[in-house]
Amino acid sequence: MAQSSTQDEARLDLKLRQLIIDRNWLELREQLSDLHAPDVADLIIALPAEEEAFVFRVLPKEFAADVFSYLPPDHQEGLIESLSNEQVRTVLEGMSPDDRTRLLEEMPAEVTRRLLATLSPDELRSARALLGYPEETAGRYMSPRYVTIRPEMTAQEALDHIRRTGRSKETLNVVYIVSAAGVLLEDIRLSSLVLADPAAKVTSIDDPPLVAVHATDDREEVLKLFEKYDRVALPVTDAQGHMLGVITVDDVLDVAEQEATEDIQKLGGMEALDAPYLNVGLFSMIRKRAGWLSALFLGEMLTATAMSYFEGEIAHAVVLALFVPLIISSGGNSGSQATSLIIRSLALRELRLRDWWRVFRREIVSGVMLGSLLGFIGFIRIVLWERLHLTEYGVHYMLVALTVWVALIGVVTFGTLAGSMLPFLLRRLNFDPATSSAPFVATLVDVTGLCIYFTVALLILHGTLL
Amino acid sequence: MAQSSTQDEARLDLKLRQLIIDRNWLELREQLSDLHAPDVADLIIALPAEEEAFVFRVLPKEFAADVFSYLPPDHQEGLIESLSNEQVRTVLEGMSPDDRTRLLEEMPAEVTRRLLATLSPDELRSARALLGYPEETAGRYMSPRYVTIRPEMTAQEALDHIRRTGRSKETLNVVYIVSAAGVLLEDIRLSSLVLADPAAKVTSIDDPPLVAVHATDDREEVLKLFEKYDRVALPVTDAQGHMLGVITVDDVLDVAEQEATEDIQKLGGMEALDAPYLNVGLFSMIRKRAGWLSALFLGEMLTATAMSYFEGEIAHAVVLALFVPLIISSGGNSGSQATSLIIRSLALRELRLRDWWRVFRREIVSGVMLGSLLGFIGFIRIVLWERLHLTEYGVHYMLVALTVWVALIGVVTFGTLAGSMLPFLLRRLNFDPATSSAPFVATLVDVTGLCIYFTVALLILHGTLL
Repeated sequence: MAQSSTQDEARLDLKLRQLIIDRNWLELREQLSDLHAPDVADLIIALPAEEEAFVFRVLPKEFAADVFSYLPPDHQEGLIESLSNEQVRTVLEGMSPDDRTRLLEEMPAEVTRRLLATLSPDELRSARALLGYPEETAGRYMSPRYVTIRPEMTAQEALDHIRRTGRSKETLNVVYIVSAAGVLLEDIRLSSLVLADPAAKVTSIDDPPLVAVHATDDREEVLKLFEKYDRVALPVTDAQGHMLGVITVDDVLDVAEQEATEDIQKLGGMEALDAPYLNVGLFSMIRKRAGWLSALFLGEMLTATAMSYFEGEIAHAVVLALFVPLIISSGGNSGSQATSLIIRSLALRELRLRDWWRVFRREIVSGVMLGSLLGFIGFIRIVLWERLHLTEYGVHYMLVALTVWVALIGVVTFGTLAGSMLPFLLRRLNFDPATSSAPFVATLVDVTGLCIYFTVALLILHGTLL
Repeated sequence: MAQSSTQDEARLDLKLRQLIIDRNWLELREQLSDLHAPDVADLIIALPAEEEAFVFRVLPKEFAADVFSYLPPDHQEGLIESLSNEQVRTVLEGMSPDDRTRLLEEMPAEVTRRLLATLSPDELRSARALLGYPEETAGRYMSPRYVTIRPEMTAQEALDHIRRTGRSKETLNVVYIVSAAGVLLEDIRLSSLVLADPAAKVTSIDDPPLVAVHATDDREEVLKLFEKYDRVALPVTDAQGHMLGVITVDDVLDVAEQEATEDIQKLGGMEALDAPYLNVGLFSMIRKRAGWLSALFLGEMLTATAMSYFEGEIAHAVVLALFVPLIISSGGNSGSQATSLIIRSLALRELRLRDWWRVFRREIVSGVMLGSLLGFIGFIRIVLWERLHLTEYGVHYMLVALTVWVALIGVVTFGTLAGSMLPFLLRRLNFDPATSSAPFVATLVDVTGLCIYFTVALLILHGTLL
């Protein structure tokens, strides 16, 4: 069983290592063939680079292609470089077309050229067709290896046809009823065919209605349909309804994870990495982080400008400066709460653009209540510290405490509103809300928060401290 | 096709509305039966509350149960309240056991009691058994409706057995070879059975090796196995290997989405909402946000304490106060980049606990380089503004600019290290890294950043400004 404990894994690992050291290729081949392809891939990843190709070469042909498709891109590239053209061809031809598309799009240009050169003319045409679809669309994830049946077949005829033609297809769990002209009419589950009266016409068998996607649909759209309709595979058609391929749920599970990772990294204020942390080169990672960090820094410089407008007030009442970090961080925190909530809801389609006004009303109430709460805590803190002689805020400490309270209501409300509305605005302007909301909100709220704070201070402290 | 445009949807919506107004139940029933269950659920959600039950009652029995399982919890609760006990029983018995478990765990206690009371003794026993597993474990997501075959069967015998017993099972895409004692021996895909020689023993048919989970395994663990092994269903066993149920990939896709949403909301500094934004009551949402926001606020109060230590320095050199927001926000931004990167990598198992030292070395280099870059930009900005007479920073402006540069190297490096190491620490202490890292990092970095900044200022400006 695959859920074997890590102890078992470690023991197996040691045993295989010994076989490699002993150069016992026959026994190694035997042992590896009993494992799952993804587990063999994990073993290969853990090996020193020079041994990877050794182990890979002992795998049976078809299994090797399967294992290869589970390796991360950097290991795939390394292997391609150490294999002969003939071996590369075998691996490529054994891979499923959608995994091959993923490989071709992930490799550097010169590797891709070499790979394409090893393909047979037929496979080359098919690979070029799939690569012709825009990135992150359904076309890039589909496999042309599916089973079609004709509407006039009976269940038994369909099963016989599947038995004859079904080998090495992407999936057999669903087969497709296609007209003579290649137009997709219906899909039907293999299980429905098995359960049906063998003499029944396939078109008369009870089965959930068809759901299909277009080859140019965005992969997020495809993900939504899988989630909504609980399917294990969806057919892909062109604009005229001709069947082009099939997307299976395992690819979509990967897409779901990648989309969430991208959103989380963007919310963290950086470009999406597109690869696991340790697989990204140090300098390429620093570059991806430096861009946004510098942009944010340039934005935050406005805080220095804002502060210098109030330099006179600070010089008069240094006590005001003490609460600057507290005030702006509260605005930032309430803004980032609101932004991450709204961005995720927009991504999951729980919220639509037209809901902005409902969200606005909810958030203004939330903002005022949360701001009042924080302000109250801040007020108590200042009064308490003064009374307990922990800090000296001067004779006007009550007015200072009141300034902090009122400013926090304003700052938190502004943070909440800015954080919740900016994702809508970005979506409306056809930007990805995740890309830039959190950073924008932080800068916007910091600068505005300072202005709110010092304006409140001027109003409340005029004639006393200022 | 389900990918019909929003125009078509709107037209259909209007037509159905008209049928409801005309009280034309027969035609409505006809129209609705042609749709997908999730689409009918969407239609019902859009209706005024008092019409929901009307429409629901016209649906054919089995379809009604299917539609019901696609409704969000608040609508399910509303419907249960307006249906008779008899109708509730029909719906419950038509639901698949795993959807029923989800319903029972989501409803308020008194509704759950009423629901359990309507079940037959058999169904009640099964429901209680599933609810007996801890929340978010495999047991809560499994369905006991699967097909087992015996190891001595041939492919043809197995197919005949499936045809006899396969109706209303959770999935038929995979069936399970189980010993007389109920121990799970192997799983086999329906497609492999169809493709095999009808006379072949099921145990001799070529099919990927077994992957199984324990009923008490965490749902995240289950999600990882689905992703790794590309399955459409996984069997669930007890500790002795007896088969208990099956989990299908559609449920796991929902889990993947929920886990990502929880992580995003926690990274945004709040408790996970557990429901779509607009379905959560305003005050319950404010409560979920107020908790963390107050905790953060209490933490950030330390900045006021830190600032008051340096009150004398600020009074001497007000110019120092101007850069406080810029300095601490840079630390916060670099910290939140690092945290969101590391948390996601830990969640996806791209990083393990033992990798902390590799990460530490990478992040210290990243931090110093990013800090130097930002510091350089800040230095240029201060010198430029002074030379262009945009702001007057005084005669010692070069020293002030140098202070900002050096302080930023320290603050950004500290932010990066704190942001990347805290998730490891929290994981080591068995806390969920997502829960609290981002907020903790923000507070930690703000307070420490202030101390770094003023310490650097004391060192560089001693004898001139200070």
